[in-house]
Amino acid sequence: MPVALAACALAVPGVAAGAVREYWIAAVPVTWHVVPNERDAIGGTTFDPAQTTFKTVVYRRYTKGWAKLIPNEPGDEGIQGPLIRARVGDTILVHFENLDTAFNRPHSMHFHGVHYRFGSDGSYIPGFSGPGANVKPGQSFTYRLTAGPDSVGVWPYHDHSPSMDDSIAGGMYGALSILAPGERRPDHEFVVFFESQLGFMTIDGRAFVGNTPVFHAKVGDLVQWDVLALGDDVHTFHVHAHRWKAPDGSFVDTQTVGPAESFKIQWREDVPGTWLYHCHVEAHMMDGMIGIYRVARR
Amino acid sequence: MPVALAACALAVPGVAAGAVREYWIAAVPVTWHVVPNERDAIGGTTFDPAQTTFKTVVYRRYTKGWAKLIPNEPGDEGIQGPLIRARVGDTILVHFENLDTAFNRPHSMHFHGVHYRFGSDGSYIPGFSGPGANVKPGQSFTYRLTAGPDSVGVWPYHDHSPSMDDSIAGGMYGALSILAPGERRPDHEFVVFFESQLGFMTIDGRAFVGNTPVFHAKVGDLVQWDVLALGDDVHTFHVHAHRWKAPDGSFVDTQTVGPAESFKIQWREDVPGTWLYHCHVEAHMMDGMIGIYRVARR
Amino acid sequence: MPVALAACALAVPGVAAGAVREYWIAAVPVTWHVVPNERDAIGGTTFDPAQTTFKTVVYRRYTKGWAKLIPNEPGDEGIQGPLIRARVGDTILVHFENLDTAFNRPHSMHFHGVHYRFGSDGSYIPGFSGPGANVKPGQSFTYRLTAGPDSVGVWPYHDHSPSMDDSIAGGMYGALSILAPGERRPDHEFVVFFESQLGFMTIDGRAFVGNTPVFHAKVGDLVQWDVLALGDDVHTFHVHAHRWKAPDGSFVDTQTVGPAESFKIQWREDVPGTWLYHCHVEAHMMDGMIGIYRVARR
Repeated sequence: MPVALAACALAVPGVAAGAVREYWIAAVPVTWHVVPNERDAIGGTTFDPAQTTFKTVVYRRYTKGWAKLIPNEPGDEGIQGPLIRARVGDTILVHFENLDTAFNRPHSMHFHGVHYRFGSDGSYIPGFSGPGANVKPGQSFTYRLTAGPDSVGVWPYHDHSPSMDDSIAGGMYGALSILAPGERRPDHEFVVFFESQLGFMTIDGRAFVGNTPVFHAKVGDLVQWDVLALGDDVHTFHVHAHRWKAPDGSFVDTQTVGPAESFKIQWREDVPGTWLYHCHVEAHMMDGMIGIYRVARR
Repeated sequence: MPVALAACALAVPGVAAGAVREYWIAAVPVTWHVVPNERDAIGGTTFDPAQTTFKTVVYRRYTKGWAKLIPNEPGDEGIQGPLIRARVGDTILVHFENLDTAFNRPHSMHFHGVHYRFGSDGSYIPGFSGPGANVKPGQSFTYRLTAGPDSVGVWPYHDHSPSMDDSIAGGMYGALSILAPGERRPDHEFVVFFESQLGFMTIDGRAFVGNTPVFHAKVGDLVQWDVLALGDDVHTFHVHAHRWKAPDGSFVDTQTVGPAESFKIQWREDVPGTWLYHCHVEAHMMDGMIGIYRVARR
Repeated sequence: MPVALAACALAVPGVAAGAVREYWIAAVPVTWHVVPNERDAIGGTTFDPAQTTFKTVVYRRYTKGWAKLIPNEPGDEGIQGPLIRARVGDTILVHFENLDTAFNRPHSMHFHGVHYRFGSDGSYIPGFSGPGANVKPGQSFTYRLTAGPDSVGVWPYHDHSPSMDDSIAGGMYGALSILAPGERRPDHEFVVFFESQLGFMTIDGRAFVGNTPVFHAKVGDLVQWDVLALGDDVHTFHVHAHRWKAPDGSFVDTQTVGPAESFKIQWREDVPGTWLYHCHVEAHMMDGMIGIYRVARR
């Protein structure tokens, strides 16, 4: 989907210039349903839509010129904006338009992990920041980013305008996934965003088994989890019946992720079953931060 | 104590089949005393048993057929269940019986770090899970686990039945300690479980110096700390006058452990004294999460 | 500034004895202003001095015999005590005097990361600890410390006397910076202490852009950040437009630091601009834990 253009990348020392990838993203109002089935199936509680639905603004992807909505890809479905993909050496142009007619707030995009000049930082600092940090409703801005060798992995992006506090709580975030030179894409890439909405602890904006994403794989697949958090809380990501090598080389099955931290986990799937993945902070799990991962036999 | 039987282990690819280790464990009611001496010796506060005692259900180890109670080994004394020991390649059979006559709740055992098939996951998922996830009072279930090369280290186990929230808060957890091939056991292995009970911040179910475990070693001993947490809080484990190599190779004297995370630390003891070990979150320390480690001269 | 004396260092096995570095430090009353300009420039809130000023006791450095105050060095300015510098093999003598005439409390110094005998632990344990753990107003004590090979890096020190809870919250902490043999000092060393004071979330005792330290560098400089936390909260340290290699070898731009944890980060500066550094826990950032880092062109 990213469009490769004639190269005009910012130079990253020691890295061959790659493709230019363009994304057209807008801030758009939506009515979001945190618990579509109105049930906590494990705890046995029921809710009604007045408790579980809210009006908010989110990032959504469009075709060139914000002409037509492009839904998020499988594995990235939820309240978050689109997964932005690139490879080391690439330039990423993110054309952002603020279509916030719901609250009429300024918005912006601030990107973790990638290289950029000051004008593309997207963060409001009185007296210093420019137009990219405070994009008013009806306006647009293009952020110019570069993926360096130290950009490999998974990173969050989010609003950093004067409205950032409300906007992030409302779902204005998404992920970047940057491949190393020669790295191949996994068979599945599951995006897990920990945040809270309406007092529920959410994964991709949803709470409780039956509402949070159900991820699917089969034995033999190369599976990748992109785990990110925003907000005020520290989480511990756990998947049942699986272990992975932490960056430090030790094996774990539970890993801390604090606000704006992010990591990716990979494994070759080898155990069929219906497994839980969840935040292991018990209060978070009980308040909705839990989902199902189904592995089919080969 | 683990009984080696004729091999019938689940195959772990690339690992020679090891021993079969059997544990007989039951969920049993106890009256637990969080502050037996009714004092916070450092802060100077006193309590009375109505504030510090509660009725709960815990895991306890038995001889074959749940015939006779086996107390936890030295270094693992506390509210937690027995330390389950194995080595890479071993099969672990945990025969679990629910003797909860206090609350008449279902219980289960869910194990971190080890390999198992779906039936031994022990986690309640409406519509999917089997009998091992919801063992009713008076019933029993055998969990079949295998220690793989990625199981080396220390891991928690805990209730994951429909009663898990209350049960974990009440002390239904314990640790597994899995050795690598050829790894020798340390001279001392100290199990430190961070949780909270009755509003106190506890280590192994006890609060305040004089109640929490006093660990003993002498100069020259190989000392190991198994550090684990459950519940809702992140902790920072600190031992005075000692540093250790974190898995990433850096030296630290304070290390974060979030809910369901776990790590082991080893050092050759070289400094005599009466040292504090504690969670360095100050509110936790003040609410009881602190103990004494005594090192004798050689 | 540290005075090299004739060697009388505690032996650290395998390390050549280095210099003896002496520090004269006192606990002194100050009136501290958390928000000197009385403004949250980003959020738009204003305060008055009754909300932002408090009387407290802090560590301050003096010339020999506590004769004359020595201000903290650039990059270490704030509520914290002086940066204590040493190299592996050095002995550090910290001569501490309690001049707390404001609250008339006992105080002490407890040091992370370095080696010492029991008498220099500085931690109050009823029935065990000595005079160094409970230095009364008007009294003094000398702590004798040694930097071992496992002491390299950045570590906190803080009060661990019977008054520690109030004293740490009041600012009684500081940092040690220990160099490896042959390691050269960076061009800039920025000390970032996360704590809370008066309900604000503070960096070096200050809240909000315009009050927190403004750190300066230019392109080409070797820049080091010493990041530490004390108190009850976990923080995630983030600097805009920069990434660094975590101890585990992965690249990050946000890193967790819990109470009493600490790390140092280095990079060769390459991107001019006015950048935000902050804790990425959103509530902390909104409550003041944010500052500015200015990089000039070469």
